[in-house]
Amino acid sequence: MNVTLRGRRQHFRTVTFDAATNEVVLIEQRLLPHEFKLVRTRDYKETAAAIRDMIVRGAGAIGATAAYGLTQGVRTFRGQSLPAFAGHVRKVYETIEAARPTAVDPVNAMNGVLSVMSTGENVASQQALALAAAEEFANEDVAHCQAIGKHGAKLIRNGTNVLTHCNAGWLAFVDIGSATAPMYAAQAAGRKFHVFCDETRPRCQGASLTAWELTQQGVPHHIIADNAAGHLMQRGEIDLVIVGSDRVLGRTGDVANKIGTYTKAVLARRHKIPFYVAIPLSTIDWSLKSGFDIPIEERHEDEVLGAVGRDLRSGKRRAIRIANPTSPARNPGFDVTPADLVTGIITPMGIFNPQDLWKRRSQLQPVR
Amino acid sequence: MNVTLRGRRQHFRTVTFDAATNEVVLIEQRLLPHEFKLVRTRDYKETAAAIRDMIVRGAGAIGATAAYGLTQGVRTFRGQSLPAFAGHVRKVYETIEAARPTAVDPVNAMNGVLSVMSTGENVASQQALALAAAEEFANEDVAHCQAIGKHGAKLIRNGTNVLTHCNAGWLAFVDIGSATAPMYAAQAAGRKFHVFCDETRPRCQGASLTAWELTQQGVPHHIIADNAAGHLMQRGEIDLVIVGSDRVLGRTGDVANKIGTYTKAVLARRHKIPFYVAIPLSTIDWSLKSGFDIPIEERHEDEVLGAVGRDLRSGKRRAIRIANPTSPARNPGFDVTPADLVTGIITPMGIFNPQDLWKRRSQLQPVR
Repeated sequence: MNVTLRGRRQHFRTVTFDAATNEVVLIEQRLLPHEFKLVRTRDYKETAAAIRDMIVRGAGAIGATAAYGLTQGVRTFRGQSLPAFAGHVRKVYETIEAARPTAVDPVNAMNGVLSVMSTGENVASQQALALAAAEEFANEDVAHCQAIGKHGAKLIRNGTNVLTHCNAGWLAFVDIGSATAPMYAAQAAGRKFHVFCDETRPRCQGASLTAWELTQQGVPHHIIADNAAGHLMQRGEIDLVIVGSDRVLGRTGDVANKIGTYTKAVLARRHKIPFYVAIPLSTIDWSLKSGFDIPIEERHEDEVLGAVGRDLRSGKRRAIRIANPTSPARNPGFDVTPADLVTGIITPMGIFNPQDLWKRRSQLQPVR
Repeated sequence: MNVTLRGRRQHFRTVTFDAATNEVVLIEQRLLPHEFKLVRTRDYKETAAAIRDMIVRGAGAIGATAAYGLTQGVRTFRGQSLPAFAGHVRKVYETIEAARPTAVDPVNAMNGVLSVMSTGENVASQQALALAAAEEFANEDVAHCQAIGKHGAKLIRNGTNVLTHCNAGWLAFVDIGSATAPMYAAQAAGRKFHVFCDETRPRCQGASLTAWELTQQGVPHHIIADNAAGHLMQRGEIDLVIVGSDRVLGRTGDVANKIGTYTKAVLARRHKIPFYVAIPLSTIDWSLKSGFDIPIEERHEDEVLGAVGRDLRSGKRRAIRIANPTSPARNPGFDVTPADLVTGIITPMGIFNPQDLWKRRSQLQPVR
């Protein structure tokens, strides 16, 4: 998407690869919304570290980073021996895999690259195929988000007030995003609408990342405390909810997403407001049988007890303690919204009733 | 309630009056939870400023502060002329009234003092009656909270997990609190239970004040992000919700309270968890006909865009900006929970079905 830097509007992807210098180029997301900076990783170990240290986050974005990182590592091999090359590739793969062990996207992305590479007859052709496959992965991520946007844009009319939670925007993918894709497509179609961004405590990705994205794209929006959406729904100020997801169960349609998503779905149901979940096909988990089987990560209590931002006087980055210093906190990172609260799943293939995913699985399972 | 200072456990009320020095003594609530400090106001103007600047907040606490502040001003009058005295009293009253123009408690409290004073035959006796009336007001506030605790404690058993929102604790009253009163009474009865405190963005009164109170009283608790309660209810980890209120409509039972309360009531209904509202009788508004007639204050957007706390390194108080610097925010301060979501209203007179307040009004209207 576009970012305005020193008055100039420029297009960026969240993740790109500079084949000439063999560097992965990433937006340093930990500095947003206060500073926009590109980071170039010089080797695959730095790329793995960028994933581990959250310079890049979001399913599609870390998938593409892993695909590029594998390619980056693969391309530095000197020699002709295929067995030695295979050993090197394995080492690169495992280093990147270890960077975010619970995420499925880096592994899926790297497996895709390996599968294309394996058709090459020698080291040089495998190296070239890896680069082509990684580029293809990133382009497909963009194409999928574009397709989500095309289908989802129909839901947004002139005057629609959309609520979104957390960040499932272009920063979480290579470009465009999932939950934001229908908004950007509706904007491109000339529609005038407005977005409420839940701030999304404790990490505030809505207030920082989504609000920054929408500002850059010129989409009118307001940030609200997570507490405020119920009141706004009650007063008729919200017409539509669109969120992303970390995992949608193909068998049931249950949706795991950032903590607080379930609350918004319950409120939307009470107010008969449509609640949509926008995802690429890679987010669908075809194996788990129930939403209650999804493991919910309990994160560190310091996220709840404090906040991170900029000091209003000095402009410096600060971590502050908000809470009573000796009180403990609970910090579940995600929750599960049962399928019966979900109006539809917006995918690159169209919008589906969540309970229909299983019977449409032949259409929805990506080719491996 | 008790506060441990330098290892010594001491009893404090939120507001007291030192008749010897004619000073109102307040806990400086803006420094909590990081620092416990008493402030003494030397004249009624300083007392009005303490209300205006939020050194003291909460319905019962500002009511008692206004009653004492009026008394403080009344007692400085020198002379015998009743008309001159009445003019002075009027000036004091108006200064304190202007300190928090939307609150009803200071005005009601001062009217109570004036009505007792008016039975005095001369300046000296009116001054003495004012002091007695203000002390009586504060003692009644405490007695009402004790009665709320007695009735509400029945709801809390061994092992109960209670959720509360914002701070309706002893810091919001002269002592004991409303939503916390059943907890403190259950604790006094030897019951073992646990409390979840919503942090209550944007001002975080739950994470700071309620968590501090519960720590001082030794009540086991965890702070949670406002986003987390839905997930915890879904997993069976919350058995009971008790909140306070800024206004309960006597005609309908609708409840106005801190933003986010309505959301918790909707979630509680979905999970069949009882949802109680604890209030003194002065919180009941017998005039308004519908919850939608309650004006909802829209507060400054900076509360949502930032956070206030202590710098983890320097220990200094800091205001930080969390959100994207150029994004606007909406900040409704309160919301309305319709009576049909409220299991019961815990009052000093017992627990009532919210729809029954009106037919029980002869019992519930405080004598003026």
